[in-house]
Amino acid sequence: MARQFKDEIIEIRRDIHQHPEIGFEVQRTAKIAANACLKLGLKVTEGVGRTGVVADLIIDPKANTIALRADMDALPMQEEGDCEYKSTVPGAAHMCGHDAHTAMLIGAAKILTSLKDQLKCNVRFVFQPNEENFPGGAPGMIEDGVLKDVGMIFGLHVWPEIASKSLGLCVGPAMAKPDEFKIYITGKGGHAAEPHLAIDPIIVGAQIITQLQSIVSRNVSPFDNAVLSFTEFHSGSTHNVIPEKAFLHGTIRTFRPEVQIYMRETLQSRSRAIAESFGAKLEIEYIEGYPVTFNHDDALSVSREVAQEIFGKDQVIMPASPTMGGEDFGYYSQEIPACFAFLGIRNEEKGICRMCHDPRFDVDEDCFVEGMSYHAGVALSFK
Amino acid sequence: MARQFKDEIIEIRRDIHQHPEIGFEVQRTAKIAANACLKLGLKVTEGVGRTGVVADLIIDPKANTIALRADMDALPMQEEGDCEYKSTVPGAAHMCGHDAHTAMLIGAAKILTSLKDQLKCNVRFVFQPNEENFPGGAPGMIEDGVLKDVGMIFGLHVWPEIASKSLGLCVGPAMAKPDEFKIYITGKGGHAAEPHLAIDPIIVGAQIITQLQSIVSRNVSPFDNAVLSFTEFHSGSTHNVIPEKAFLHGTIRTFRPEVQIYMRETLQSRSRAIAESFGAKLEIEYIEGYPVTFNHDDALSVSREVAQEIFGKDQVIMPASPTMGGEDFGYYSQEIPACFAFLGIRNEEKGICRMCHDPRFDVDEDCFVEGMSYHAGVALSFK
Amino acid sequence: MARQFKDEIIEIRRDIHQHPEIGFEVQRTAKIAANACLKLGLKVTEGVGRTGVVADLIIDPKANTIALRADMDALPMQEEGDCEYKSTVPGAAHMCGHDAHTAMLIGAAKILTSLKDQLKCNVRFVFQPNEENFPGGAPGMIEDGVLKDVGMIFGLHVWPEIASKSLGLCVGPAMAKPDEFKIYITGKGGHAAEPHLAIDPIIVGAQIITQLQSIVSRNVSPFDNAVLSFTEFHSGSTHNVIPEKAFLHGTIRTFRPEVQIYMRETLQSRSRAIAESFGAKLEIEYIEGYPVTFNHDDALSVSREVAQEIFGKDQVIMPASPTMGGEDFGYYSQEIPACFAFLGIRNEEKGICRMCHDPRFDVDEDCFVEGMSYHAGVALSFK
Amino acid sequence: MARQFKDEIIEIRRDIHQHPEIGFEVQRTAKIAANACLKLGLKVTEGVGRTGVVADLIIDPKANTIALRADMDALPMQEEGDCEYKSTVPGAAHMCGHDAHTAMLIGAAKILTSLKDQLKCNVRFVFQPNEENFPGGAPGMIEDGVLKDVGMIFGLHVWPEIASKSLGLCVGPAMAKPDEFKIYITGKGGHAAEPHLAIDPIIVGAQIITQLQSIVSRNVSPFDNAVLSFTEFHSGSTHNVIPEKAFLHGTIRTFRPEVQIYMRETLQSRSRAIAESFGAKLEIEYIEGYPVTFNHDDALSVSREVAQEIFGKDQVIMPASPTMGGEDFGYYSQEIPACFAFLGIRNEEKGICRMCHDPRFDVDEDCFVEGMSYHAGVALSFK
Repeated sequence: MARQFKDEIIEIRRDIHQHPEIGFEVQRTAKIAANACLKLGLKVTEGVGRTGVVADLIIDPKANTIALRADMDALPMQEEGDCEYKSTVPGAAHMCGHDAHTAMLIGAAKILTSLKDQLKCNVRFVFQPNEENFPGGAPGMIEDGVLKDVGMIFGLHVWPEIASKSLGLCVGPAMAKPDEFKIYITGKGGHAAEPHLAIDPIIVGAQIITQLQSIVSRNVSPFDNAVLSFTEFHSGSTHNVIPEKAFLHGTIRTFRPEVQIYMRETLQSRSRAIAESFGAKLEIEYIEGYPVTFNHDDALSVSREVAQEIFGKDQVIMPASPTMGGEDFGYYSQEIPACFAFLGIRNEEKGICRMCHDPRFDVDEDCFVEGMSYHAGVALSFK
Repeated sequence: MARQFKDEIIEIRRDIHQHPEIGFEVQRTAKIAANACLKLGLKVTEGVGRTGVVADLIIDPKANTIALRADMDALPMQEEGDCEYKSTVPGAAHMCGHDAHTAMLIGAAKILTSLKDQLKCNVRFVFQPNEENFPGGAPGMIEDGVLKDVGMIFGLHVWPEIASKSLGLCVGPAMAKPDEFKIYITGKGGHAAEPHLAIDPIIVGAQIITQLQSIVSRNVSPFDNAVLSFTEFHSGSTHNVIPEKAFLHGTIRTFRPEVQIYMRETLQSRSRAIAESFGAKLEIEYIEGYPVTFNHDDALSVSREVAQEIFGKDQVIMPASPTMGGEDFGYYSQEIPACFAFLGIRNEEKGICRMCHDPRFDVDEDCFVEGMSYHAGVALSFK
Repeated sequence: MARQFKDEIIEIRRDIHQHPEIGFEVQRTAKIAANACLKLGLKVTEGVGRTGVVADLIIDPKANTIALRADMDALPMQEEGDCEYKSTVPGAAHMCGHDAHTAMLIGAAKILTSLKDQLKCNVRFVFQPNEENFPGGAPGMIEDGVLKDVGMIFGLHVWPEIASKSLGLCVGPAMAKPDEFKIYITGKGGHAAEPHLAIDPIIVGAQIITQLQSIVSRNVSPFDNAVLSFTEFHSGSTHNVIPEKAFLHGTIRTFRPEVQIYMRETLQSRSRAIAESFGAKLEIEYIEGYPVTFNHDDALSVSREVAQEIFGKDQVIMPASPTMGGEDFGYYSQEIPACFAFLGIRNEEKGICRMCHDPRFDVDEDCFVEGMSYHAGVALSFK
Repeated sequence: MARQFKDEIIEIRRDIHQHPEIGFEVQRTAKIAANACLKLGLKVTEGVGRTGVVADLIIDPKANTIALRADMDALPMQEEGDCEYKSTVPGAAHMCGHDAHTAMLIGAAKILTSLKDQLKCNVRFVFQPNEENFPGGAPGMIEDGVLKDVGMIFGLHVWPEIASKSLGLCVGPAMAKPDEFKIYITGKGGHAAEPHLAIDPIIVGAQIITQLQSIVSRNVSPFDNAVLSFTEFHSGSTHNVIPEKAFLHGTIRTFRPEVQIYMRETLQSRSRAIAESFGAKLEIEYIEGYPVTFNHDDALSVSREVAQEIFGKDQVIMPASPTMGGEDFGYYSQEIPACFAFLGIRNEEKGICRMCHDPRFDVDEDCFVEGMSYHAGVALSFK
């Protein structure tokens, strides 16, 4: 069934790919999704969560509802590959595959409309903006009621680490809580020839980075997954002046709340202790990231059964390795039973093996058949 | 004698102060010095070392010659004080007192011309550009022959750490060799959620800074004077990307060549070893700074004797504490016997206590009498 | 069935507990096991792997054989608890529960002999010495043929982190590869007042420990499990002498060979680079520990099915959390399909909650019924 | 004059060398000094400061008094050289030259008694025990009145860094204040496989050592002299246990009180901050060492004048380099004008170039003539 929509969906995907839109500014893409759903006779609501689209396929107002979600936004970067459907917008590109997500969800809407009489539940198609930028597009969608009366929600992400025609399903956590922090150190500037009259913020920063390695290496259980990355260090402007200030920027990524709380608090207390021991001041701005994207047992069972049928038992990788990357799908999985799958798109023969956010990222469009079918399948098996 | 020139010299200093010139571009200031010397009947050569001025007071072509040196250049910064003779040039200011140096040397020329018949040597007045910017103005002056047939050279610097009406004389080294280094670390960039796939240059930089503290604390003798300051650390641009590169910038300051060589080599070998142990690459650019400004025994004896007469025995601080700052006067002291004095200008009653390069730096002009007299005195006592 | 042997098995366990034997010197314990098996009519071989015992229950020489393994050795420590069956041997105590293992395996032999006609395979009871001391007792047993013609092997460990009446089964790795390393740093001794004439091995050791935290925190994937612990640092003898040498001792614990190789090599290369950068010498002695104790899928299936029957579905924890501790059962699991279970013994009401190797460790003897039954059950379900 | 006593003094020195006595237990050595002085007709007091000897050569009870001091104690170590007058006491040896100090002071007593009528002051010969062990022998001597009515005190130390027949005189500080500290870290022990359940005191110790390098490298002026040496690190007992405690031992050596106070307080506050940031506890025991041995201007003038006469102008090294080593002569220099000289004993031709406390240390006995003469000379020039 999916096969007959393949060319059409590829065309939609390429159209979106050529016209990438960033953040909440996904009006054109949203209109494509909305129009396609309207054409199918679905009940379409636009402007959900600012620029999102919700399309309902209702078989019985009293029946249970399942939600299928796709994100629509592109990245603020330049595409460097040479595909024929290359981005036409300078500084914007679908290097994370959301174009494919949107197109496949439109495909699923087409399939399910065709098979409407086999459905045992209502289906809500959710097209969401602004997945890439914290605090994400999901909170606004939820606030606007997208999960109201919904029993379960499913999503997927194209995944370059998994071969095309395979699907990965994580047991429990699939994607991490990606927190951000900014550390502002204030010492006392001075002449580089007189360190004893200054309070050197670079020494403080270096010690913080060096000492805090022990959080992951000693204080977090070897059976927990945790990352603390310092990704920026900026201080000073010339060779003969000890600067007054230093700035550190970074991320903490965790799965379990206990670990997240421990790391957040230890980052703060230990950084401050180090700075103060040197006589420096330290301010931390801590920005809580998306919640963990978590696969609930019941939703996972539905996914596995459908996936094994569509991809074949050996092509379903479970448990798949989770990732310390983040996803705002986590907000949905906080609210109701949810499952987020990794759809294989790697195809080395076609030269498709770049990671997400790589400027030459692409997807193997042959996987669209399985992607659409999987979306449709979970809806068909849900009651 | 000096007292009668005081007002005139203050006027010259204030004129120069209001019209600061930077680096080699000291044409106006040089012209003031040249004209003053021409008016005194001295033999004036302009354009020495690009924009320097040399004025010779010759008593006997066969006699020995003494050189007195002043620097003329201002700093590329904004004056923030409120004196009536404030800089009129945006972004340029005499915050290191070279205006006073130039004016006092003109004053010394006036005195010595008056007392010409008491002189037992020829006197060369050296007005030098570009002291502030490496590689300095002195090398060009030397190349143009300023030290030719000169027996000794003397200089002074106004010094806010010493009270007005006092003079500081260091025994041996007075100012350090201020070297500069730039360290370029190249790791491997990546996603902040996947540190194991990256080579984190920030960790490498932090380790280098942390570990290299032991050079001064353990490897240099407690009886040597040495500074290693890391004054810049720049790496990264956002919270979720491990950057590829990091940049460290700093300075090594020493007095003894053995210590300088040890520190330079250890900085290089130890930084490289750390980086390579992490799998990163490291390039170091090492820029040798001015030579040590060194007071030779014979020149120092001359200075001391004259200074004790002019300032009074108790107002001559000897040995004065040297400084890890640098001076391109060091080039002269490499070539011939030399002495560089610190002229006290601190006057807390007048609110004059800012360090050199402070945007509110100023000098106690009352010290000009002693400054001029000291310059003249060493010439008069020299044979 | 197991219930009827309970008191007898408790008595055997308490007898062994009161007479702990260490390492390979388990003659008395081995004799208890051998005599019990002889009494049951089994074919008993003593002196296997030096002091081990193998007892065969043969139903058909051509049938498949299953092995069940218990370890017999105690720890070289003092028991501090006050149980009535306390160790009577100073400096030796069964603080790791091997007494219970041995007793339960004797119990299983009793059950299986009673139910001999229900068996569809031969059963080999393996009583092994010297589990606690590297390189373990298993290699000698294997060398002496204990795995010859054996299809699968099963073992268990009493586990204080799991409640009594429950069983934990890990999927894949259960216990880590526990390697040991010794680092010998040679600097150059000297007077504490003259650090610049010495090469300080304490600075080198401190840097190695500090810097190598980044192996686990940055270089190992957050989805791998790894521990690097420095557990000893010894250097120096007084306050005014910089010592010549420092000694570091520690352990690396891993599951995956790639990770183990990476950590071993990085420990060596990075430690050496640090030492050499300071001018010190460094020797590393690296002692490979027991292999990973790994649960094979097929053996695990057998265990799970039996366990769910005996403990009840909800009392089987699977996947149980593995541990970074080591076990020489790993040698068996390298050779043939194997499964190693964690038998719950925690009973807070009885005050039984101490960790293994704690001087007040004890086990809830009520778990013996399930322990024996589990051993017997896997044999009965095996063909 | 000294020359005629040379052989006798060498004999005395060798006798003392062969019979070394440690700490306060210098009864035999004290008796040698006392008897020699009694034989000269001096007023001898024994048992001063427990086992010290004071001998007074009085010319006029109303005249001023000068004190000359020698220390008598040996070191608790084995002599490894092969001189004919080698130590006959196992585990005790004069490897710091106090035998020579005592013998030369006896020689000075002989000279001055011969030249009594040239003296213009009374002379007090001070033979002190226990210089090597904190808190020294000087405080007891002072308490027993050794400095009462004394105008100045002089001492010397044989010095292997200075060639025989030369004398070194420091301007101001000659020997440092050698403080001692002990740091006790208490974490939480655990299994090496479970670092997250422990608080690792080795990590804490390593961080303290690493971080505190910045005290000397950044916080103390490059023109101050300071040493912070960690000379002991002890923690742990095996490879699979994270220990509960770690012990650090070391020394802080300074000249200026401000620097000493700063370093002591910073050591304490920064160590504690680091430990607490890791959740560990830390206790510091800080033991104030001998005061700085300081050469007062007036006493130094006396020394220099005498020394230049005896050694020749070029053989008096002034300013000599001070040392970060300590001396309990510092207690005397706290009380009255004092000068402590370094007597050259290095003679490479004779193979005499070992440092003090080296098991093969020896002195060039040819220097005794100058040593005695210097002692006598300062007394003769004093009024």
